[in-house]
Amino acid sequence: MRLMGLILALKLNVWMFWEKMRELAVDDPRRIFHCFKVGLALTLVSLFYYIGPLYDGVGGTAMWGIFTVIVIFECTVGATLSKGLNRGMATLVAGAFGFVVYWLASHFGEKAEPVVLGISVFFIVSAVTFLRFIPAVKTQFDYGVLIFILTFSLVSISGYRENKLFELAHQRLSTIAIGGFMCIVISIFICPIWAGEELHQLITCNIEKLADSLDGCVFEYFNESASTADNEEPGQKSQAYTSVLINSKATEESLAKFAQWEPPHGRFWFWHPWKQYLKISAAIRCCTYRVEALNGSINSEIKAPKFMKKHISDACMKLSSQFSMVLKELATTTKSMRRSSNIEFLVSKMNCAVEDLRNALDSLPHQLPLPLPPPSIEAMKEKNPCIWTINMPLTEVMPLVVVTSLLIEIAGRIQGVVDAVNELAILANFKPAVGKSKLRDNN
Amino acid sequence: MRLMGLILALKLNVWMFWEKMRELAVDDPRRIFHCFKVGLALTLVSLFYYIGPLYDGVGGTAMWGIFTVIVIFECTVGATLSKGLNRGMATLVAGAFGFVVYWLASHFGEKAEPVVLGISVFFIVSAVTFLRFIPAVKTQFDYGVLIFILTFSLVSISGYRENKLFELAHQRLSTIAIGGFMCIVISIFICPIWAGEELHQLITCNIEKLADSLDGCVFEYFNESASTADNEEPGQKSQAYTSVLINSKATEESLAKFAQWEPPHGRFWFWHPWKQYLKISAAIRCCTYRVEALNGSINSEIKAPKFMKKHISDACMKLSSQFSMVLKELATTTKSMRRSSNIEFLVSKMNCAVEDLRNALDSLPHQLPLPLPPPSIEAMKEKNPCIWTINMPLTEVMPLVVVTSLLIEIAGRIQGVVDAVNELAILANFKPAVGKSKLRDNN
Repeated sequence: MRLMGLILALKLNVWMFWEKMRELAVDDPRRIFHCFKVGLALTLVSLFYYIGPLYDGVGGTAMWGIFTVIVIFECTVGATLSKGLNRGMATLVAGAFGFVVYWLASHFGEKAEPVVLGISVFFIVSAVTFLRFIPAVKTQFDYGVLIFILTFSLVSISGYRENKLFELAHQRLSTIAIGGFMCIVISIFICPIWAGEELHQLITCNIEKLADSLDGCVFEYFNESASTADNEEPGQKSQAYTSVLINSKATEESLAKFAQWEPPHGRFWFWHPWKQYLKISAAIRCCTYRVEALNGSINSEIKAPKFMKKHISDACMKLSSQFSMVLKELATTTKSMRRSSNIEFLVSKMNCAVEDLRNALDSLPHQLPLPLPPPSIEAMKEKNPCIWTINMPLTEVMPLVVVTSLLIEIAGRIQGVVDAVNELAILANFKPAVGKSKLRDNN
Repeated sequence: MRLMGLILALKLNVWMFWEKMRELAVDDPRRIFHCFKVGLALTLVSLFYYIGPLYDGVGGTAMWGIFTVIVIFECTVGATLSKGLNRGMATLVAGAFGFVVYWLASHFGEKAEPVVLGISVFFIVSAVTFLRFIPAVKTQFDYGVLIFILTFSLVSISGYRENKLFELAHQRLSTIAIGGFMCIVISIFICPIWAGEELHQLITCNIEKLADSLDGCVFEYFNESASTADNEEPGQKSQAYTSVLINSKATEESLAKFAQWEPPHGRFWFWHPWKQYLKISAAIRCCTYRVEALNGSINSEIKAPKFMKKHISDACMKLSSQFSMVLKELATTTKSMRRSSNIEFLVSKMNCAVEDLRNALDSLPHQLPLPLPPPSIEAMKEKNPCIWTINMPLTEVMPLVVVTSLLIEIAGRIQGVVDAVNELAILANFKPAVGKSKLRDNN
């Protein structure tokens, strides 16, 4: 019985692991291709072991090819290129540098040589290690500096033992070059995953997510609260989106970093303004913080009185649909890399909707019933209806005022996203718009 | 002249570079120690080259020691340990695994051997590469898996060429072990930088920063706007802080990850709840988003009428000072690792201040002068002063209502930070509080 239980548990675990793997693979099938590409590169490099003449040709340094493939090969072309070029350059420079230090040290006589070597390696390695603390070096060349330290130490120190240092260095360098070259060729020509393309899609997708989250959040607040029987808290889905948007910063930064190393591909030419994508994403994030705040006030304990909510509901819904339109237009602009003909029109409509919402809020007080109208007042009301205003504590109006204020603020932030996308359109020479889209005619 | 200009420009550049370096060093002098520690470890390992018997002892595989030192040595003890242990374990397992594959392949006869080897390496490497996509593996064991692939390929493939594979593997393993051991010993015993201690300090510091930013933001809004002659926008300093708080997530996560690998040190015992620090930081970040929103509404274009602002200014300032007190008490609790005797009292006072602010906001309408009192009204006002309320558009009240609402929401979020710190106090067995602090007596 126990044994059966154990076997069953094991089976379950294996099955769960398998399911997880399957999910990862289905989620992005290119992952599997990447794995096979690594396997292929490694198999090709290992031919230097299997085939006698090749092995002798590199003087038994085939190991360095394997090494290079495993360390360099990354998912995206940009990352592979960045690591490969970093490694190549660093190896060359450090090799030369190490050789010079070894040569200088060898002039001090046999006894003093290891001492001089040790001291100079100690200080040079310490100094170069310090370079890794410089933020600019850290982001773009960290791997190169690491390889520099490695190669420099290996060349200068092992020069003390190796007789044919120059030949050895030459052979190692050629295997490293072969390994690196193979990685780069395979990653570019077999199902390439371009960091630039990924970044482009991610940003487009994020603009759409922002639109959806904003839309969902406002819609749920003004519609579902009527039928609160629903189990789900309003804005739960929207909350999930905002957390994704807030947390995608690191991914975007690394993609932009690697995209700069990539050659022209697809629709992206040399010097494509990858950094502008980061500006767009910063504008999106800036907007997302407000959506997050909106979620917070929608889920707050103080609920706005229903009749008030109803009063501004239309204006809010209209504004939110304008947000959606603007954002979706931006997403289309980015996706198609073609200037939009009606973004300005949409933005001006959005600004009108903001004004409408302001007016709706301002007209709110006049419509409120007085909670406890004193008897003498009814008469006056007829004379001068305009001054009969709320006697309602401001705390009760608060949730609604906050939601309105946040929506108005979000309009400003969306303007920021529009500006960033427009700047991208200029920097990246987006194609001019074709004809006027249907939207304008409809309105 | 041109030459002089060139030399001057060069001089300036070198000087600027030097200044930057000096800044980095002064900012955190431990960076220099770290560099010298790396130099020391490398020099010690390179003794295996300089001293004959040692060199022969490891059969010329001293290179692997240098390699290990350079790749493993990180700033914090935890990172070094994590990389070292990952490397050690992965090398052992992969070595054994590679040996088995090589041994199996060698049974297929001389012709078939490279084919069998190639195919099995291709599939095993592809499969293991896929493991790196699993998030849990990626965060904690990515380096280990990389080393596994590396060692496995080297052992199984080079087995085809090397005659004394076993001896070679043994020698390499021992140099790797020596290099790793040296790194670990040096990083633990010479000016150690513990990831755990860093995380602890970072969180304490972040709580203080939150307090300062909140304090500064509210103070500047209610005080400085009277003297708007000042060039600086209100909340600029506070904004700088909030961006630091929002962006410190990645650092905290990596510190927490590495802290788990560290042995007990200082005040931190085994199984110190490092993950709880991440919960505290999440609560802080949650609060920071609201402070960011507060900054936004403080800098918004619509300014609240001064007389209204003045009315709730006291309540807001009081609440903000309560925030400060609670947060500073939390910082002290975390820093001293000693439970606080009056945090509950401070929290209840904070909640009272929230109520006061609510009341102040509610009493606001009654105090407002009617903008255009109709002539007939003056008489009625004396009879029934209570119903004379604002006829002011809600949009004008908006900024103030939003600020109030955000402050009230922040109170809720600070409660979240308090809960997270209390949980840490329980999980980490903080010492009991000593006596009642002065604060209570003062109140």
